Amino acid sequence: MRWPTLFSPFRVGSLELPNRIVLPAMVTRLSGEDGVVNGDILDRYVRFAQGEPGLIVVEAMAVHTAKSGPLLRICGDEFKPGLTELAARVHAAGPGKVVPQIIHFLKIARSGWRQTVADLGLEEIRGIVTAYGEAAVRARECGYDGVELHMAHAYTLSSFLSARNGRKDAYGGSLANRMRLPSEVIEEVRRKVGRDFPVGVRFDGEECIKGGYSVPDAGPIAVRMAQLGVDYISLSAGGKFEDAIHRPGAPLYPYTGYSGDRCMPGADYPDGLNVYIAAGVRAHLAAAGLENPVVATGKISNPAFAESILVEGKADLIGMARPLLADPDWPKKVREGREDAVIRCVYGNICKMLDENFRKVTCTLWPAGSIQAPSSTDREPPRWDGAAPLTGAYRDGRVYLKWPAAQDNEAVQGYAVYRASPGQPERHIGSNKALGFTDPDVAPGTPYTYRVQAYDLGGNRSGFTPSVTVQIP
Amino acid sequence: MRWPTLFSPFRVGSLELPNRIVLPAMVTRLSGEDGVVNGDILDRYVRFAQGEPGLIVVEAMAVHTAKSGPLLRICGDEFKPGLTELAARVHAAGPGKVVPQIIHFLKIARSGWRQTVADLGLEEIRGIVTAYGEAAVRARECGYDGVELHMAHAYTLSSFLSARNGRKDAYGGSLANRMRLPSEVIEEVRRKVGRDFPVGVRFDGEECIKGGYSVPDAGPIAVRMAQLGVDYISLSAGGKFEDAIHRPGAPLYPYTGYSGDRCMPGADYPDGLNVYIAAGVRAHLAAAGLENPVVATGKISNPAFAESILVEGKADLIGMARPLLADPDWPKKVREGREDAVIRCVYGNICKMLDENFRKVTCTLWPAGSIQAPSSTDREPPRWDGAAPLTGAYRDGRVYLKWPAAQDNEAVQGYAVYRASPGQPERHIGSNKALGFTDPDVAPGTPYTYRVQAYDLGGNRSGFTPSVTVQIP
Repeated sequence: MRWPTLFSPFRVGSLELPNRIVLPAMVTRLSGEDGVVNGDILDRYVRFAQGEPGLIVVEAMAVHTAKSGPLLRICGDEFKPGLTELAARVHAAGPGKVVPQIIHFLKIARSGWRQTVADLGLEEIRGIVTAYGEAAVRARECGYDGVELHMAHAYTLSSFLSARNGRKDAYGGSLANRMRLPSEVIEEVRRKVGRDFPVGVRFDGEECIKGGYSVPDAGPIAVRMAQLGVDYISLSAGGKFEDAIHRPGAPLYPYTGYSGDRCMPGADYPDGLNVYIAAGVRAHLAAAGLENPVVATGKISNPAFAESILVEGKADLIGMARPLLADPDWPKKVREGREDAVIRCVYGNICKMLDENFRKVTCTLWPAGSIQAPSSTDREPPRWDGAAPLTGAYRDGRVYLKWPAAQDNEAVQGYAVYRASPGQPERHIGSNKALGFTDPDVAPGTPYTYRVQAYDLGGNRSGFTPSVTVQIP
Repeated sequence: MRWPTLFSPFRVGSLELPNRIVLPAMVTRLSGEDGVVNGDILDRYVRFAQGEPGLIVVEAMAVHTAKSGPLLRICGDEFKPGLTELAARVHAAGPGKVVPQIIHFLKIARSGWRQTVADLGLEEIRGIVTAYGEAAVRARECGYDGVELHMAHAYTLSSFLSARNGRKDAYGGSLANRMRLPSEVIEEVRRKVGRDFPVGVRFDGEECIKGGYSVPDAGPIAVRMAQLGVDYISLSAGGKFEDAIHRPGAPLYPYTGYSGDRCMPGADYPDGLNVYIAAGVRAHLAAAGLENPVVATGKISNPAFAESILVEGKADLIGMARPLLADPDWPKKVREGREDAVIRCVYGNICKMLDENFRKVTCTLWPAGSIQAPSSTDREPPRWDGAAPLTGAYRDGRVYLKWPAAQDNEAVQGYAVYRASPGQPERHIGSNKALGFTDPDVAPGTPYTYRVQAYDLGGNRSGFTPSVTVQIP
């Protein structure tokens, strides 16, 4: 086993996870506005389960009845049959555990108007507490292994935790007051579900907005949550309304500003850019004598990197959302030593664009038209018949690559492009379904050497094309 | 010597620095709009030099004649007498080396309008290259030890490097094109000053704005700069116009958004939050076989932390701006083992507010009315005559502390407040000149233990008050 820590079982409260890989909640837009579990939702999570992550967090479902776009619901008993089937199907499909993420959100309008925490009366606040408690009970009744309370991003509980919570009463202003409602929710949930039902929280370790909080506040917040009996703490960053860019006629989408970039960092950001948040919060917990496990997320898709985060004590669990969307079989393939067959997320954030537009969230690397990741047990790689010339040319600051189609016994799914330059190790810079690729990130005076592999539905990779070197003027 | 690396001499190009501590360029607003070195400017840099940092970077001075607020100028020979005196006085006052930072900026208006890189004609671009070259020659002629090219934040060369540089010609769009003008400036400067005159660059390792670049671009940018003969690379972050908040009637100030927070992180951010940038860029350089030294900045004020950054190979030099403003004697005191006598920056960013309003930049910790840091060779600490009761009370989410005045043979300069909580080590949470302090960052259910020290003009500290514990409900 090359990554013994990543694939070691791990205990979270009363739960034994088969490994340290967590699928964080990721909206699918596969449900209707009725919020009921449907066949597409079942297929999506069964597919995730087949890949064998340790913990699957089902996308956020509303604890209340407020209108929204396509979003699952857990705000009434009428949703229980679907949710029960989802839990059962996930359990049957793999060894991983499954918890729903439960969410409360405030109102937004297409005009750009949004309700803020300052607008809520004490009765409404009490209602939020009650709704979370009742939803958590439903999660337990539906057969889930626990429940995750959504306190991150632009949503209600995160907005209470925010350093920009401007309420003038006991629910705002100071850190203690900002933590009051989230604490009441945790206490209510714990009271309703009992001591042994795992309860996790996901919250922002840094808001990534002007005047927002960072690790110096997130540490004490996590310590308090742990003292209140939270079984795990999953750290996110950003995703706030405060810096969102309003598109006229569209509801405000909280992932359009820099805080959105930090929440779902694209190809232009370094790997693991938010790991310092998990590490900082975990250090606060450790200093307070607390060992509640911490989940790190944010561009962690390389198994060696994931292993190092665990070994260095920066986190206890590794969350990977987009990499598991691109290839749900990541955990299984890596555990079996078939890391080369992983279809690798290129962080192009087409999935994010689909979410923003209320369209079904898919991966651009999947075969055209698919709404689920492909499955294949085939082990025969694609090949190029005869020569496979790769050509590259520099023009106007960019390198343009072209190659011929490869062949496969099932179907070629795409082409992965690799690049090396003097002193820089070869790395995967992108993938494409088309027979070409444009590299916009080249520096003057540098020679870049490219080569390409084709891969099929199972992620089996062909041999490399001959390499081509392009000298940038 | 407790911090042997931090205080080891270090070679930068042809220059031998006495230690690894750099004062990064920090605007003082002490000059008039004429841009001429005056007595206040001389006093400010002499005071810095007396504290013995390894390298002093004099605040940005304009290479061109465009109008601005109070700002030094190096755009004509008429500025050379003042600049020559400044270099000579700094050299006479301490062992450190001194270089000016030279800047080109685009036009901004009180209406919020700003000129962008897309507005510049090729003639104007050529003029920028020429102006930098001529200014660098003046820096050498005035007796400086080198020159630093400002390519960071919201200014012209940074805006060309930016991933949001939207020029459609050879100076924008792709990474290679974005680097074209900065590269031309480096080549021109090097051509004009000769091979042995040290030339440094300061640029953003991450823009910290939506759609901005981060380390994956900053690495190749630094490699290219190093190949062009830059002697050191100083990394900053953010400070951009794109997310600045416009105050009606005031010119846009590029440190008012989140990118401004990241450039000059306040008390709410963790220490060393931008170190990953320097470390990432340095790794890119190392992979390309380049050893050009890298300066890390951003809330590094603890000597043990600074030493660890060097020892772990994350940077070669440590920049500290606000800590040296608060106490220019930081390097000298720490080297002499008198770390306890350092007057510690509380990252309250009053200095930043003064800069924003074109007011003389001072430190709120200095005695009231001072425009320079105090100097004192006194070693007698303040004391409290008789009992020094510290009282603390919780109210509305905050802890309110009060204490009586201390006495000193010279003058009490302020009071440092320390806090501990279960499992959390005692730490300095703030300083105040008044006889009280409000702590807004307390968590429910936690007991906090406070104590206070008085300090005098030399930073000598009294004994602690008796401690007081406040239990948060």
